[in-house]
Amino acid sequence: MREIEKIEALRRWRKSLPADCTVALVPTMGHFHRGHLSLMQRARGENDLLVVSIFVNPIQFDDERDYHRYPRDQRRDLELARQEGVDVVFAPDNSDLYPEGYCSYVQVEGMTDCLCGASRPGHFRGVTTVVSKLFNVVRPGRAYFGKKDYQQYLVIQRMTRDLSFDTEVVGCPTVREADGLAMSSRNQHLSAGQRESALALYRALKRGRAMVEEGSRDPEEIEIAMRQVVGEHTEVEIDYLQARDAGDLSRPKRLRRCVLLAGAIYVSSTRLIDNIVVQVGEPQEGV
Amino acid sequence: MREIEKIEALRRWRKSLPADCTVALVPTMGHFHRGHLSLMQRARGENDLLVVSIFVNPIQFDDERDYHRYPRDQRRDLELARQEGVDVVFAPDNSDLYPEGYCSYVQVEGMTDCLCGASRPGHFRGVTTVVSKLFNVVRPGRAYFGKKDYQQYLVIQRMTRDLSFDTEVVGCPTVREADGLAMSSRNQHLSAGQRESALALYRALKRGRAMVEEGSRDPEEIEIAMRQVVGEHTEVEIDYLQARDAGDLSRPKRLRRCVLLAGAIYVSSTRLIDNIVVQVGEPQEGV
Repeated sequence: MREIEKIEALRRWRKSLPADCTVALVPTMGHFHRGHLSLMQRARGENDLLVVSIFVNPIQFDDERDYHRYPRDQRRDLELARQEGVDVVFAPDNSDLYPEGYCSYVQVEGMTDCLCGASRPGHFRGVTTVVSKLFNVVRPGRAYFGKKDYQQYLVIQRMTRDLSFDTEVVGCPTVREADGLAMSSRNQHLSAGQRESALALYRALKRGRAMVEEGSRDPEEIEIAMRQVVGEHTEVEIDYLQARDAGDLSRPKRLRRCVLLAGAIYVSSTRLIDNIVVQVGEPQEGV
Repeated sequence: MREIEKIEALRRWRKSLPADCTVALVPTMGHFHRGHLSLMQRARGENDLLVVSIFVNPIQFDDERDYHRYPRDQRRDLELARQEGVDVVFAPDNSDLYPEGYCSYVQVEGMTDCLCGASRPGHFRGVTTVVSKLFNVVRPGRAYFGKKDYQQYLVIQRMTRDLSFDTEVVGCPTVREADGLAMSSRNQHLSAGQRESALALYRALKRGRAMVEEGSRDPEEIEIAMRQVVGEHTEVEIDYLQARDAGDLSRPKRLRRCVLLAGAIYVSSTRLIDNIVVQVGEPQEGV
């Protein structure tokens, strides 16, 4: 496994490959859990070569404290990547990705205004900018993203189409702990009691799913019921808990086709997100 | 010469090329004049293959009338491209570049707020977005831009570096008519009398250059003198006429290194731009 730090070194490696070689990219912020490993395993099986990037991207954090306390453990990450058969770990530093005078950004408009975009201003702009840069350097045929960050997956898919990147964006299922908690690097901030409270989010989403499956199509009715489930836990603060169209994130009066149930909560100062997608009609393209 | 209309067809062509083949891109809005041809000639001499794109990009026009009256003559353009030894003319249509639900944009911040950016809101966002798309489809090793649009050249250079495109941005000198008028597709809107007035812009810039060469370093003093030259023509309206740093477009109290003298005027409803760069100290990188 190669470890590459510099953009120019990665470009040289990329250019040395035969034209018909398929290259996969799994962009990460490191601190791997089984969710990351599942992306690597899927990418490993579908492509000739696998690049995993590790970069805690400062411009996607709306909260500087959150950036600084984001967990990092590169040594462990490199060992796990090796075990997964990764070909290249690309771990650039800040000054190489954002040189002096940096001022260019990629923005997906509209669908970044709601859900996580509403509570984290600039977050998706930071994500789409760094992913554009990674796409330009790695030139992957396929890039793999977890659907735990469902809005991010949809936004990157739209950006990739709109900006004519020659990359297929592959969304992969959320990986959960045995008790249902969605895998997240932030879970490690939780005490045992907080972890119990954190599970309320998934329980609320499952309540929403049951309602959709039983025929409810009114987003408001479903949201009220989901909020009730979380409301039973006093130490949990809801950021949002919503039912939306899973194709374009719009919030119609009556849900149809494919429904996204998504939520973000704070357990003490730790922000956690989760979602469930429920198919209620004809499958939609790309979901 | 190939004429390609579809993004996917251009991608297929691009992928069929040997890896060591150097590809140049000259992005244009068509209606070629000698300025465009000089870009093609330079690109032709420095690369194995030459792609010229022709696309009147709606999202870079802040004024819809200007977009609709922008001159188009694809038949003549194709003939001229053939004469210049162009390998591929890429002439996509609107719906292929901007499909339904399009919402992704590339923005260079700061240096797009002044000069043309101040009077044409959204203009540079449209330019950097379409150029990003062209870069992603054509993957040129070099892309050629005229320095008549000096701010555009600088903005694209910055975007290319910032977003880690693997493309060298080459700036080429302004081509002028015998009387000094900078070549522009918009010149054809001018009557004989208006054309005479249009020359005031270049005269003003030359007046500014003379002052810089004689030792003036005060942007305000130079701007007042330049405005006086244009002010002699009552049918000319000044949009801006400024002296700035040619490296980052800042407007220092005292000019140094490399000075940009740039102006935009309206002659009746036709907007014309021009500029002169004057070296007054050590050469700067990339200028």
